[in-house]
Amino acid sequence: MVDLNAFRDELRRQGLNAFLVPMDDAHMGEYSPGSERRITALSGFLGSAGFAVVTLDKALIWTDSRYTIAIRLEVDEAVWTIGEIESGGPLASVSGFLKPSEVLGYDPQMHTIGGVESWTQAVAKVEASLQPVSLNPVDAVWRDQPAPPATPVVPHGLEYSGRSSLDKRRALAASLSKQGLGAQVINQSDSVAWLLNARADDIAGLPVPRSFATLHADGAVDWFIRPERITDAMHQALDNRVVIFPPEEMNARLGQLGGRVGLDRTTCNAAIAETLHDAGVEVVANTDPVVLPRAIKNETEQQGARDAQRRDARAMIRFSRWLAEHPAIEQESELSVAAALLAFREQNPDPVPMNGISFNTISAFAGHAAIAHYAVSEDSSLPLAKGQMLLVDSGGQYHNGTTDITRVWAIGGQATDRQRRDYSLTLKGHLALARQAFPTGTMGHHLDVLTRQFMWAEGMDFQHGTGHGIGSYLSVHEGPQGISKKPGKAALQAGMLLSNEPGIYREGESGVRIENVELVVTRDDGFLAFETLTLVPYDRNLIDLSLLTPEEIAQIDAYHARALAEIGPDLDGADLDHLRQTTEPLA
Amino acid sequence: MVDLNAFRDELRRQGLNAFLVPMDDAHMGEYSPGSERRITALSGFLGSAGFAVVTLDKALIWTDSRYTIAIRLEVDEAVWTIGEIESGGPLASVSGFLKPSEVLGYDPQMHTIGGVESWTQAVAKVEASLQPVSLNPVDAVWRDQPAPPATPVVPHGLEYSGRSSLDKRRALAASLSKQGLGAQVINQSDSVAWLLNARADDIAGLPVPRSFATLHADGAVDWFIRPERITDAMHQALDNRVVIFPPEEMNARLGQLGGRVGLDRTTCNAAIAETLHDAGVEVVANTDPVVLPRAIKNETEQQGARDAQRRDARAMIRFSRWLAEHPAIEQESELSVAAALLAFREQNPDPVPMNGISFNTISAFAGHAAIAHYAVSEDSSLPLAKGQMLLVDSGGQYHNGTTDITRVWAIGGQATDRQRRDYSLTLKGHLALARQAFPTGTMGHHLDVLTRQFMWAEGMDFQHGTGHGIGSYLSVHEGPQGISKKPGKAALQAGMLLSNEPGIYREGESGVRIENVELVVTRDDGFLAFETLTLVPYDRNLIDLSLLTPEEIAQIDAYHARALAEIGPDLDGADLDHLRQTTEPLA
Repeated sequence: MVDLNAFRDELRRQGLNAFLVPMDDAHMGEYSPGSERRITALSGFLGSAGFAVVTLDKALIWTDSRYTIAIRLEVDEAVWTIGEIESGGPLASVSGFLKPSEVLGYDPQMHTIGGVESWTQAVAKVEASLQPVSLNPVDAVWRDQPAPPATPVVPHGLEYSGRSSLDKRRALAASLSKQGLGAQVINQSDSVAWLLNARADDIAGLPVPRSFATLHADGAVDWFIRPERITDAMHQALDNRVVIFPPEEMNARLGQLGGRVGLDRTTCNAAIAETLHDAGVEVVANTDPVVLPRAIKNETEQQGARDAQRRDARAMIRFSRWLAEHPAIEQESELSVAAALLAFREQNPDPVPMNGISFNTISAFAGHAAIAHYAVSEDSSLPLAKGQMLLVDSGGQYHNGTTDITRVWAIGGQATDRQRRDYSLTLKGHLALARQAFPTGTMGHHLDVLTRQFMWAEGMDFQHGTGHGIGSYLSVHEGPQGISKKPGKAALQAGMLLSNEPGIYREGESGVRIENVELVVTRDDGFLAFETLTLVPYDRNLIDLSLLTPEEIAQIDAYHARALAEIGPDLDGADLDHLRQTTEPLA
Repeated sequence: MVDLNAFRDELRRQGLNAFLVPMDDAHMGEYSPGSERRITALSGFLGSAGFAVVTLDKALIWTDSRYTIAIRLEVDEAVWTIGEIESGGPLASVSGFLKPSEVLGYDPQMHTIGGVESWTQAVAKVEASLQPVSLNPVDAVWRDQPAPPATPVVPHGLEYSGRSSLDKRRALAASLSKQGLGAQVINQSDSVAWLLNARADDIAGLPVPRSFATLHADGAVDWFIRPERITDAMHQALDNRVVIFPPEEMNARLGQLGGRVGLDRTTCNAAIAETLHDAGVEVVANTDPVVLPRAIKNETEQQGARDAQRRDARAMIRFSRWLAEHPAIEQESELSVAAALLAFREQNPDPVPMNGISFNTISAFAGHAAIAHYAVSEDSSLPLAKGQMLLVDSGGQYHNGTTDITRVWAIGGQATDRQRRDYSLTLKGHLALARQAFPTGTMGHHLDVLTRQFMWAEGMDFQHGTGHGIGSYLSVHEGPQGISKKPGKAALQAGMLLSNEPGIYREGESGVRIENVELVVTRDDGFLAFETLTLVPYDRNLIDLSLLTPEEIAQIDAYHARALAEIGPDLDGADLDHLRQTTEPLA
């Protein structure tokens, strides 16, 4: 942890009245390693979306609505003022913490180009000034700051990626040439990892090496990463058009770029833009060219996703059996069941390697399940009890695919009418989306209401999106596609993976979320539809048949029959019996 | 009609290589009088969305997908090249009709401020120039151009408007002051009409006087309109803070405005912006402040809308009876049934005056119904025949409300399975929207899929929005709200009127559209919902019960029971019998 007084002394030393502490590191990914969690070091906040501003006498932190409950458990409200990003985040609040002629510092590596532009405008409005720093004041006073991770970099084999790096780069290079660009700087680690078919363990849950790269319009790549991290297998897998440079040479290499250079203003850090600008390189704002091809999984990745989900289903079904048949469930807790699930995932024979979990398991019992991104700890872990619901949102990182699944169980098989109602209304929405076909050109925001329509009728809603994209042994949250109320950035296309995860939350009481992974496929008539990859039964103890239509019951029965047919052959004994029982026709 | 050769001679005389002919007149409304239909005079195109460019050797016209079929019936394709706005309209095609150093003329009165900016950029890209004209070259050679309409201006009484002009202006003036504005120039005739509670008959279907106004931040208004048009009743109704100026004094008055002046870039014509600019008046881009309060109907307007719809339902039910019991339906045609419906609307005793129809009746039989905005004429009018469907989309202008309804009938009561399937899939979507509740903050694009979900499942879609806002004895199409795939401009709010009109179209064969008007209301739990104001039975001959759920059947039966209970008391004899028959429970 960073001592706020020491931090403020450092601000004074640097002549700053305030400093911006975003969640982002220099790569602008959703996840970052401990060495980069400056906002956590300052405030204790553990969530994945937040922004802090520390002045000489104020400490302000904002997060989004997913974390509004969680943050109050993690951050000292006597010191920190907590705000919601949705109701006017830090940009909208500048006049509340900055006076005319004051100096607001920022680390240009930790902000996007677009972000710095927004701050410049906001700060000008209050007649203050924005100043880049060369030494991040958090780092200056963070005594136990971990060293940046430097795990071995290994190849992501063709049997999983389905496409060589050279082939991917040829296609992207053609698109750069078409845009009249000589090169593209790629800032996000998961974009570089996809482009080079490289993986590592720099970040918990996200199996990538943190690195930058420049893709040239002839398909060559300058890869900025410590050379000693590259394993022989990785060297072997890389073609010789990829040249490795140590990170300290990056600025010099960037300065030598000829022609126009593409940068994604929404993901490229401002320090890179400044380096190019200072060297007189012409910059063109565009979209990271990796994003769309990465989202559209090829046949190998699609089959990998199917296989990974089936394997995950085995673990989930065993876990479900263990929960259902537990002789003393009251002796288990949120923490212990998360550990049990991890064991089921790890003890799950399969020729494809597993590399940990894809995000921190949300194991949330009773009222904790209403906290959208609840992070269980020794302090918070609740014991289980019959008559309440357990929500587990989890996933694995397998070399052939990334998984993400949420199931809810009635502990002890007992459920109230209200619990069954919440579950059934959520399930109806989840099923409506899963069965919907749609024309090409459809965006996520066109489909979002399908999961909400039944709960809306009852005066309820949930405050998160319906679904997000998912990587292939990459980030469990991946763009450009998504399903939410916000206008979409990209039309849904065949080969994209999306989660389908509506929920109903009652603060302090309970939470339901049901999540499957859906693959966008093309029907014979040219319309798009979803192939559901997740094959784990819903909890029949929580289904109120009187709320379902015959069509919905048939849809669940068909889904359960698929789970039995496809996962059953890999199970035996009590596990298979459990799968048989939980997939029996409902009516 | 304008002779193209004479027009091109005029272009040469003015030193122009090409000229822009938009659909808009100086008021930027959806509808304009014959004197302003320059695009029609040039090309023959009758639709309400289009844009033409005439060069010395090319004649190009674009329209949107609603008119792609209709335009080919109206425009000579030997002379005109037809394009679709959606697949790159005129702006995207500049390089196809303009060469470097050529001069493209435009009439600044006929383009919005934003429109001129877009054209300036597009023309710069091909290194040509954009030049305003003082004499519109169409007018110069349009020999039989009608005189601009100058119908008597009458007051829209408090019994219909529910709110005095002074009261409306006080509220808007407060909002101008809050924005730091001294005045707002209001460019759209229906905004001025709403603000001043004034009506006239300048435009078929839209009962407004064409006029401009300046609203001052103290609530005073400069109204630019020929003084002799103002009836004594209108003078009497207007408070003395409204001062009338003849249109020729407008530019001088605008030039004298002090303080900052608000203009809506999307609806204000560029000539006004130039006048202010030349006079050194500071202009601020904002949204026409009339738009949102006009859309949120007050209690009086809401009750007026209910009453107008009930009255319209009487006419529609009589028309439906006449169709069903017609002894020789083959002797009727699209034109004759439109005339019959108009007669039913006009011979419909009611204390509230009717002022014609709210738009040209779409009376479309068989394949004509697939043409989204089919305009029937003597040339095109088809005779009716049993076994095909008749689609009639029509509405009335009543002093208490504007109506808009679409119904489809199986002529002779005979329908094929396919016709019943199309009708039933459309009806399912229409019902799903009508019964949906939704939280505050919901936008139209969140709801649009509800009407499409069932036809999407069958691989069909329709190429128009689900619904549009509707005025109160004003335009039948009114913003800012709407329900379509496009991201919305305003959240739906209680008091807004929206049409609910999905359809299924088979080119050359048939068209189904079912349209009711819905009022947004607030439920006890704070969620919003729709109150359906239109009360006209659906055609049971076209309903395939096997495609409906019990919930949908109950919803239709409840709707029909409402129609019988609310409209029945106003009908008698054969009309009442017909209503009874057509509202019997379905199952």
